[in-house]
Amino acid sequence: MSETKILASYVVNGTLAEIPGEVLREARRSLVNFMGCAVGGARDEAVDAAISAFRPFAGAPTANVLGRDERLDPLHASLMNGISSHVYDYDDTTPKNYCHPTSPIASALFAYASVNPVRGRDFMEAFIYGFEASSRIANCVYPTHYDLGWHITGTAGVFGAAAAIGKLMRLTEPQMIWALGLAGTQAAGVREMFGSMGKAFHPGRAAQNGYGAALLAQAGFTSGPRILEGPRGFSAVTTAGKFNLANVTKGLGTEFDLLVNTYKPYPCGIVIHPTIDGAIQLREQHGFAPADITAVRLRVAPLVLDLCNQQGISKGLQGKFSVYHGAAIGLVRGRAGVGEYTDAAVNDPDVKRVREGATATADSAVTEDQAGVEVELRDGRRLSVFVEQSLGNINKPLSDRQLDAKFRDQAVVNLPADDVERLIGLCWKIEELTDVGELVQAAVPQSARAASAGA
Amino acid sequence: MSETKILASYVVNGTLAEIPGEVLREARRSLVNFMGCAVGGARDEAVDAAISAFRPFAGAPTANVLGRDERLDPLHASLMNGISSHVYDYDDTTPKNYCHPTSPIASALFAYASVNPVRGRDFMEAFIYGFEASSRIANCVYPTHYDLGWHITGTAGVFGAAAAIGKLMRLTEPQMIWALGLAGTQAAGVREMFGSMGKAFHPGRAAQNGYGAALLAQAGFTSGPRILEGPRGFSAVTTAGKFNLANVTKGLGTEFDLLVNTYKPYPCGIVIHPTIDGAIQLREQHGFAPADITAVRLRVAPLVLDLCNQQGISKGLQGKFSVYHGAAIGLVRGRAGVGEYTDAAVNDPDVKRVREGATATADSAVTEDQAGVEVELRDGRRLSVFVEQSLGNINKPLSDRQLDAKFRDQAVVNLPADDVERLIGLCWKIEELTDVGELVQAAVPQSARAASAGA
Repeated sequence: MSETKILASYVVNGTLAEIPGEVLREARRSLVNFMGCAVGGARDEAVDAAISAFRPFAGAPTANVLGRDERLDPLHASLMNGISSHVYDYDDTTPKNYCHPTSPIASALFAYASVNPVRGRDFMEAFIYGFEASSRIANCVYPTHYDLGWHITGTAGVFGAAAAIGKLMRLTEPQMIWALGLAGTQAAGVREMFGSMGKAFHPGRAAQNGYGAALLAQAGFTSGPRILEGPRGFSAVTTAGKFNLANVTKGLGTEFDLLVNTYKPYPCGIVIHPTIDGAIQLREQHGFAPADITAVRLRVAPLVLDLCNQQGISKGLQGKFSVYHGAAIGLVRGRAGVGEYTDAAVNDPDVKRVREGATATADSAVTEDQAGVEVELRDGRRLSVFVEQSLGNINKPLSDRQLDAKFRDQAVVNLPADDVERLIGLCWKIEELTDVGELVQAAVPQSARAASAGA
Repeated sequence: MSETKILASYVVNGTLAEIPGEVLREARRSLVNFMGCAVGGARDEAVDAAISAFRPFAGAPTANVLGRDERLDPLHASLMNGISSHVYDYDDTTPKNYCHPTSPIASALFAYASVNPVRGRDFMEAFIYGFEASSRIANCVYPTHYDLGWHITGTAGVFGAAAAIGKLMRLTEPQMIWALGLAGTQAAGVREMFGSMGKAFHPGRAAQNGYGAALLAQAGFTSGPRILEGPRGFSAVTTAGKFNLANVTKGLGTEFDLLVNTYKPYPCGIVIHPTIDGAIQLREQHGFAPADITAVRLRVAPLVLDLCNQQGISKGLQGKFSVYHGAAIGLVRGRAGVGEYTDAAVNDPDVKRVREGATATADSAVTEDQAGVEVELRDGRRLSVFVEQSLGNINKPLSDRQLDAKFRDQAVVNLPADDVERLIGLCWKIEELTDVGELVQAAVPQSARAASAGA
């Protein structure tokens, strides 16, 4: 039995008709969330730098980059979409394997749809099968893979991009096996990049390289046939042998990881979210001013300090990996939007003072959805709260309307409000579109919408 | 102490004047060997497939691909050079870490030199510092990294390409730290690809992605600063914690891994070489015909069967990883050139019969430079030889003239004999060239030599 072959066959032969309605609904929500993040992040300096570096080497400018004026070839557009959609750490998460699953897949798909006519139904089909393939591979290698230090969003994501693009390209099963193999042998990205632009580079390269793997396979470029189960394949090599191959095929066609996808209310590491919730709750309940706060004590799951223990910070990006910053903005500002993760916000004197007065204790009795927040005030009072379920987790998901609000908050930075509303509407009805290119056109500034290929 | 910073500083500040003459000599030999392999492999179907897949997405065709008519952007040219130079498994090897070190570095450098004026001295300087950086990183993670299943040629090679291109681009030390970080977070390639085109893809992508990492760093795209020593960095993640960081800086500036570089006499897995030597010796000494051979018994180092145990094969590529095929061609043909690794040669009835009558025993008393070969003949005789040192190993290196002969044998497939001689001459005197572009022009067919950028 070859898990690679079984998964390739599933992706090649699967149809949208086999997908339950609730999975379709979650796929739509995933794409809405993705598009808001991509348009919202598109003007970040990381995207500027990547375009500046690669534009002189890009191919014919046929593909739109979501949220940008520039047009690039679709491989480079995939890269930029991946950076944009992940750069604020605001995209989706499947907590069971810590992937941010949609970015690598949808980044490639929207680039592909920008240069090829793609029906909405076909786009959705490719997205769902790509998502499930990617997530199953992540389940196979998680948790050892992640614990060793792999950024699983990139490493599992490149398979998803290859599967999704390969499906739109109508690869045969042998070609799909090659596409998965060539994707897996490009799987890369280490957590040492967290807190730098390198983190968002991972889903971008995953999108670009997965797309490239499908192109190579179509052209007859061969790979080893056992990327998943082979003794020198992705699973064994990236886990030092500690993986669970059964997770690739378990419940295939009946269980869908899209159903456990979640969307962040705050643009930072998801394990910080319960701390932020608690901080906001305390501020709302007690109405103290920043100057009243003399100390903050956090009680968090051990993983929080493993991932998000950054102290002595001065950059917005670092704030995304600082549970202390999360507590500080919740307590000082009562919110944690994109505006709380700028360099200016991190250096805001009130935020800085509260952050630097915060301490955290790892407690294995606290789950990753939970956090204890205690504030000590100038008048000696100690206020505390224990958050049992953070907003946005699988049991307390963002509603469709909350997703719309999140989308608007991000996208209005880059597009006029009317355009944002139209784009939101197109995302929700993506399956009905005759050509997803219409949606891509709606996701770029007016000036980039010329039908002809011109940079 | 940051090993990443120390290595970046070494690469940024090092000069050619500090390099001992014997190292310069070996660098020249490495480049001669590389160029023969690149031109010799340039028409392989793997390169055809990769060009077919990516050419529609490539940028302005400003860079020559070694040995080819097509021009591509320099990043895609780097990829193709890397595939060409490794596709016949004929490139160099540093046995201490099992890297094929030159391909990823020189593939990027010649693409860069095809579009930018580069003095021969500067090219050589960048090559040497890139080589040493890459090899030191390989020494840091070898052997666990390789044993787990990483194709170290690609994973260490991407650092070398980034360092070399970054040096030509005159990156600052902070930029070089980013370039190494962005290289390392793209390090990829698993040994499950061995026996497919995916293997040669690894040094190609390493060249392309290392070049890209240098471009990104120059444009201000940041990475984490501790790719080598960080707890979630390349070394720890790809070895499950079993690495030796001291090897990055040990003897820096006084010890050079170029001095232990070796060049293969046969285009296959290097651990098969002593077996081939023994088979050729037996045939030369005893003059038997293929039909005389009834059985072959091999005694080899355990690693040989780990790497090169392919049986029941039908493809030339598979032959490169079959110690049985190596024995068969030595016994049947008395040679092991490119022509012995075609599909036709693998299916040659004599070769096939002798191969399928061969068995191998792993013996831990046999080193990887040694092999025992025993042949049983129809008349009952048993002939045997034990090879103590295989041709091409560090103690029995190919001479400069043997390197020339190897170059000719490969390159005349793609270039006229006069052009091959001129190219060999230019490679040996590369440091004297005012512009290495002259050498690149000599390495492509006449039709591709137009000075203007046209595909």
